[in-house]
Amino acid sequence: MQNFTFHNPTRIHFGRGQIRRIDREIPADARVMLAFGGGSIKTNGVHEQVRAALGNRHVVEFGGIEANPDVATVERAIALVRAEKVDFLLAVGGGSVLDGVKLVAAAALLDVDPWAVVLGNVKPSKVLPIGSVMTLPATGSEMNGFSVISRRATEEKRSFGSPLLFPQFSILDPETTFSLPPRQIANGVVDAFVHVIEQYLTYPADAPLQDRFAEGILQTLVEIGPKTLADPTDYDARATFVWSATLALNGLIAAGVPEDWATHSIGHELTALHGLDHGQTLAVVLPALLDHQRDSKRAKLIQFAERLWGIREGSDAARIAAGIARMRAFFESMGVPTRLSDYGLTAAVAPVVAHRLAERGAVALGERKDVTPAAVEAILTQ
Amino acid sequence: MQNFTFHNPTRIHFGRGQIRRIDREIPADARVMLAFGGGSIKTNGVHEQVRAALGNRHVVEFGGIEANPDVATVERAIALVRAEKVDFLLAVGGGSVLDGVKLVAAAALLDVDPWAVVLGNVKPSKVLPIGSVMTLPATGSEMNGFSVISRRATEEKRSFGSPLLFPQFSILDPETTFSLPPRQIANGVVDAFVHVIEQYLTYPADAPLQDRFAEGILQTLVEIGPKTLADPTDYDARATFVWSATLALNGLIAAGVPEDWATHSIGHELTALHGLDHGQTLAVVLPALLDHQRDSKRAKLIQFAERLWGIREGSDAARIAAGIARMRAFFESMGVPTRLSDYGLTAAVAPVVAHRLAERGAVALGERKDVTPAAVEAILTQ
Repeated sequence: MQNFTFHNPTRIHFGRGQIRRIDREIPADARVMLAFGGGSIKTNGVHEQVRAALGNRHVVEFGGIEANPDVATVERAIALVRAEKVDFLLAVGGGSVLDGVKLVAAAALLDVDPWAVVLGNVKPSKVLPIGSVMTLPATGSEMNGFSVISRRATEEKRSFGSPLLFPQFSILDPETTFSLPPRQIANGVVDAFVHVIEQYLTYPADAPLQDRFAEGILQTLVEIGPKTLADPTDYDARATFVWSATLALNGLIAAGVPEDWATHSIGHELTALHGLDHGQTLAVVLPALLDHQRDSKRAKLIQFAERLWGIREGSDAARIAAGIARMRAFFESMGVPTRLSDYGLTAAVAPVVAHRLAERGAVALGERKDVTPAAVEAILTQ
Repeated sequence: MQNFTFHNPTRIHFGRGQIRRIDREIPADARVMLAFGGGSIKTNGVHEQVRAALGNRHVVEFGGIEANPDVATVERAIALVRAEKVDFLLAVGGGSVLDGVKLVAAAALLDVDPWAVVLGNVKPSKVLPIGSVMTLPATGSEMNGFSVISRRATEEKRSFGSPLLFPQFSILDPETTFSLPPRQIANGVVDAFVHVIEQYLTYPADAPLQDRFAEGILQTLVEIGPKTLADPTDYDARATFVWSATLALNGLIAAGVPEDWATHSIGHELTALHGLDHGQTLAVVLPALLDHQRDSKRAKLIQFAERLWGIREGSDAARIAAGIARMRAFFESMGVPTRLSDYGLTAAVAPVVAHRLAERGAVALGERKDVTPAAVEAILTQ
C-alpha cells in the first residue's frame, strides 16, 4: 500500500426532506448567492424548498450555469458576488453548477483572471464557503475539492482542485433527482463507473480493501444502474445510485493506490472540441484505452473480469477481452453508445486530440505515464 | 436506505515515516500533553520519533493509561492538564490511550465529575483538541468521536461519544505495530470484524453498497488476519489490517442502515466483571447472539453465509448455522477462544450480566430492540 493522507471534511445530509437542514448549516446573517443551472429547480419544487430553508437571509440568485460551465459565466457570477458582498455560496443543481461555484469561491477573493486558477498558476489561500444541494448524481463534486471548467472561447476543458474547495455541506435528497431525463441518469452511471475505474484498474498495489470497495461500487452500479434508469421513482435504487456516485470520487478508494485519469483527460478534449456529453466521451474512450493498455494493466484487468463479471474461463487474453466487452455492453445497455461513429465522428479526431494534449505538455498520461500522444492517437483510432 | 448525516473531519496520515507530520498538525506554541500507556512506545522507537516531531514545543508527559482506561486515571490526567495549562492533547498508543484522552478532552474544560460525561448526563460544548498516533489497530477510535471508559471502583464499563471528539488528525504507521504481541493483534482482528458485524448483520435496508463495503472489510480481515498474525513484519498485510480496522468504525458503513451493538453491550459487562480482553468478550458473545437471533436476522445471516463464506447449499437453517460456525472457527484460528468455559467462567455469569444491564435500563438491545434481559441470559447460557 502506498502512503497517503485522507481528509474529507464535507458534512453529508442524505435522504428525504433534508433540504431544510440548510437553515442550520448557513449562518443566519450570511449574504447568500443561490446559484443554479437551466431553471429545472423552479419546476420540480427544489427552488421552493431551498428558499423556504433560507428564510429571511439576504439571497442573490444567479441562474444559467450551463453544463460544462464556461469561465465567462463564472466571471459574471464573481462580479455579482463582489457587487452584492456575498459571503456564502449555495450551489443547487448538478456537478456543473457546483463546479462553477467552486471557481467562484476560489477566484472571488483574488484579483486575477479566474482561468489562471483553473490552470493552477494561482493557488487560492482563502476561499468563500460553499454548500450544495445536489440534484444530479454523477460527478462526486459534492464531496470533493475538484472542479472542471470549460473555456468556450478556446475550446478548452480543464480540471483543478484545492483542499479548500470541499463543500462545507452537501444535501443529497434522491427525490430531487426523480425528474431528471434518462440521458442524464445514464451519463451519470457511466461517469461514476469510470471514476471508480480510474482509481482501480491500474496495477496491483497490495491494497485488497481498496480493491473490494472499488469493486463494491462497480457491482452496485451494474446492479442498480438499469433499475434506476427504468424506474426513476424507485427511491431505494435511486438513493443507492446517488450514494454510489458520491463515494466513487470522494478520495476514499484512491487512498493508498495508483490512479490513472487518462480516460478523463482524453474525454475532456472530445467535449471541448465536439460537445459530447462527459459520460459519452468516457464510454467511448475507456473500452479502447483498456484494450490498448491491456499489457500494462494485465493483472487488474483479469481481476476486473473475474470479480465484476464472473469471467473465470479461457486464456488471460480472452478473459481480458471478455471483461472489456461486458463493460462496453453495459454502457450500451444504459443507452450510452461507445463508438466515435455513433456520435458522427471519425478517426480524424485522433491526431487533433493527441496534438492538443501534447501541446500543453500532457505527454505522459496514466498510472505508468505511458499513455503518450501516439498512444492517445491509437486509442481514438480503434 | 435510511436517512443519515455523515461527517468525519479527521485527517489521516497513513504509512511509513508519517509521525513527522505532527510538526505541521500541532501549533508551534501549543502546550502539549503527550499521553501514552504502559511504556512500550519508549522501547519501540515511537516515543523518540514523536518527541523529535514535537521539537521545541512545551510538552508534558502522562504515562500509564491502562487497557480499559479507568476514570480515576483520567481524573489524574485532567489535574495535570489544568496545572500545566495544556491546550493540545496527543494520544500515542492504542484505543485505550486515545479513549482516555477523549474523556480528558471532554471533561477538562468542565467543572463536573468526568463520569457524568461518560454517562451522558453532561454534554460538552467545547473540548480540547486531540491528535493521535495509533500503534494498535482495533478500536477505530482514531477516526471517530466515541470512547469507552471503565470505572474499576464499581466494575463498570461504558461508552460515550460526541461529534466534538473526532481527533483533528491521526497518524497510522503500520511499522509502529510490528512489535505488538500476537494476542493484541488477534484481539484487534476480532474487534474490527465484530464492529463491522454490528453495523451489517441486522435486517435488510435496501442499502446494497453499504452491504458490499461491510463485506469487503470482513473478507479482507478473514484474508489478512491470519497472515498478519503469522508474519507481523509483512508491511502490506499489516497496513491492510490497520486501514480495515479504521474503516470498520468511522461511520461510513453505518450510514443509512440499522445498527445492533448488543454484542458490545454484553461484552463490556464481561470485561467489567471478569477482566476478559474486549476482543475475547466479543468472540464469546457474537456467535451465541447470532444463533439466538437467527430468526430476526435470517435474511442477513443467509447473505453473510453466502457472500463471506461461500455457503450456498442446504436449507436456510443449515446455511445460517454453517456461517456462524465458520465465523467461530475463524476467531478460534486467530487464537481467540469463543466459549465462556475457555476463560474459566460458567453460565453462572449469565443472570448477573442480564441483571446489571436491566438495572440500568438497557432492557431492549439490538437493532429490533428485542434482546431483553431474558435473551441476554439465554445467549450467555448457550
